[in-house]
Amino acid sequence: MPRSQREVLLDQHVLSTVRLIILDFDGVLTDNFVYVSDRGIESVRCNRSDGIGISMVRSIGVQVAIVSTETNDVVSMRAKKLRIPCRQGVEDKASVVLELQKEYGVAVNETLFVGNDINDLPAFAAVGVPVAVSDAYPEVFPHVLFRTLRPGGYGAVREVCDLVYRAITTHGR
Amino acid sequence: MPRSQREVLLDQHVLSTVRLIILDFDGVLTDNFVYVSDRGIESVRCNRSDGIGISMVRSIGVQVAIVSTETNDVVSMRAKKLRIPCRQGVEDKASVVLELQKEYGVAVNETLFVGNDINDLPAFAAVGVPVAVSDAYPEVFPHVLFRTLRPGGYGAVREVCDLVYRAITTHGR
Amino acid sequence: MPRSQREVLLDQHVLSTVRLIILDFDGVLTDNFVYVSDRGIESVRCNRSDGIGISMVRSIGVQVAIVSTETNDVVSMRAKKLRIPCRQGVEDKASVVLELQKEYGVAVNETLFVGNDINDLPAFAAVGVPVAVSDAYPEVFPHVLFRTLRPGGYGAVREVCDLVYRAITTHGR
Amino acid sequence: MPRSQREVLLDQHVLSTVRLIILDFDGVLTDNFVYVSDRGIESVRCNRSDGIGISMVRSIGVQVAIVSTETNDVVSMRAKKLRIPCRQGVEDKASVVLELQKEYGVAVNETLFVGNDINDLPAFAAVGVPVAVSDAYPEVFPHVLFRTLRPGGYGAVREVCDLVYRAITTHGR
Repeated sequence: MPRSQREVLLDQHVLSTVRLIILDFDGVLTDNFVYVSDRGIESVRCNRSDGIGISMVRSIGVQVAIVSTETNDVVSMRAKKLRIPCRQGVEDKASVVLELQKEYGVAVNETLFVGNDINDLPAFAAVGVPVAVSDAYPEVFPHVLFRTLRPGGYGAVREVCDLVYRAITTHGR
Repeated sequence: MPRSQREVLLDQHVLSTVRLIILDFDGVLTDNFVYVSDRGIESVRCNRSDGIGISMVRSIGVQVAIVSTETNDVVSMRAKKLRIPCRQGVEDKASVVLELQKEYGVAVNETLFVGNDINDLPAFAAVGVPVAVSDAYPEVFPHVLFRTLRPGGYGAVREVCDLVYRAITTHGR
Repeated sequence: MPRSQREVLLDQHVLSTVRLIILDFDGVLTDNFVYVSDRGIESVRCNRSDGIGISMVRSIGVQVAIVSTETNDVVSMRAKKLRIPCRQGVEDKASVVLELQKEYGVAVNETLFVGNDINDLPAFAAVGVPVAVSDAYPEVFPHVLFRTLRPGGYGAVREVCDLVYRAITTHGR
Repeated sequence: MPRSQREVLLDQHVLSTVRLIILDFDGVLTDNFVYVSDRGIESVRCNRSDGIGISMVRSIGVQVAIVSTETNDVVSMRAKKLRIPCRQGVEDKASVVLELQKEYGVAVNETLFVGNDINDLPAFAAVGVPVAVSDAYPEVFPHVLFRTLRPGGYGAVREVCDLVYRAITTHGR
């Protein structure tokens, strides 16, 4: 069923109000795989195009942050490279989402969260614009407003950033 | 040919009796690839979603262990991260399966083994619930009760854990 | 709509005039992914077949160089292995393209640039033969003359080198 | 066009005579990618199932060796793990093929070579059973007797080993 023009306009409006994008790490900025070496070194695979998208939304004043359940240096390494803040070892993602909203002075309705698994459900409930990557765990989809076309780690974050960037630059705030 | 409701119920019953899940490593918790560096470091690729599934079944008292033919530090590194025991350098997987059953006081019928290649055939014969990943070596399938929908390293373990978790929480033991 | 024989001959002519091939790095010589380890080491994945293609065009006198926005040792490591020069940390790719043309005494029309994202648009405008990899960011395609059949990192560079090699060896200069 | 029973029997005969399998490395035992780190470390991705196939043919007396154009420690690391000899830095693969035939006392007709790119053409001509992986460079196919169903690095070597193993154990020598 094709979406009506009214629905599309509503989406544009919702996206144009976003001022804070919070990203889960594994499965969102990565493809949810982890490389484990026999020396105990862990690595993940990220997508360069996500970095370009993040730069673009930040250039128009949208805040971007990473929130990760696990404590892992790969998260801080990637966050440092992208020059965005990260919070790790987060058991309760929802409370961190609220903290970030307070820190940046951003309302619940102005916050977008991108997640992929059941441990993201509390965070989805704490934001106005919950988004799941296309290959999220199926139980996640009923709890989100948007589902990306691209899988996590394959440009899903670029896609979200592009949508927000275009909505803001086209429709203003 | 669609499966009858009776068959599905039987499966649910079988899965609800599982108290010990034993996982082959290469091709089950990984995609059966190995990364080899010019310094001699070996790495493998694992899936974060498997870890969430393992946590869930363990939270309801199901034991999980890894059994690997090869002796390789990547196995112990991953096992440590998942906080589950592992046995390596195992020529005879069947005897290790029997040892684990004795150690945990679990019957043959209550044991599920997930494998992918011909060196898993003896282990399949030593458990009540032999399972092969979807991309297992073809000669393996006649020896298993279930075949996962997902390939090894791509969430096959999460799938098995979810099935066991739902069977136990829905049907009890 | 099938291309006319005249169009194909024109393409052959254009390709046979190429004397300098400039390659973007991420997304062209790689699949646009980056591997990040918990020790802060970054890696990328390249394709051996690209190396064979580069050797072949160089054997008939075509210059090949890499231009990368980011400053990253993986670029110089790969360039060293391929024995071709690289310029990194390049904010303004177009000006580096012009520098390389001057350095090698090659005209704008004799220069081919392969790119994949919006930060390559200025470089495309500075060469006679702008090429995008098949999986380039969609906004890129209106700005190029050719689109490869293969994605970046999956032999797109080999494909470009083969086309140039055949055009030159078949049609001469 | 389906193959006649006679053709299939001829293939079985040819495969049952193989006593030496020589494998190109990049694109045959790997997927033809190379991982390059910012520290200059190179890695490749191999498939565990190939190792099982190699063990099986060796258990019935078939020799297996690796021949690689490039000199790279990843080749020797992998060869060591598989416990098979390797020759690296080989400009002229055909002459090394002849050396190996002499060393093992194996005839041209009893030698199988698996390759994937144009630098394997001389080696193909030096053996009785030239084989290309399914994703070989197209110019290679006219020069081989068999094309595997699986791509290089994705079990192509396992497939070849299985075919030889079955032909020998079914038809004898």
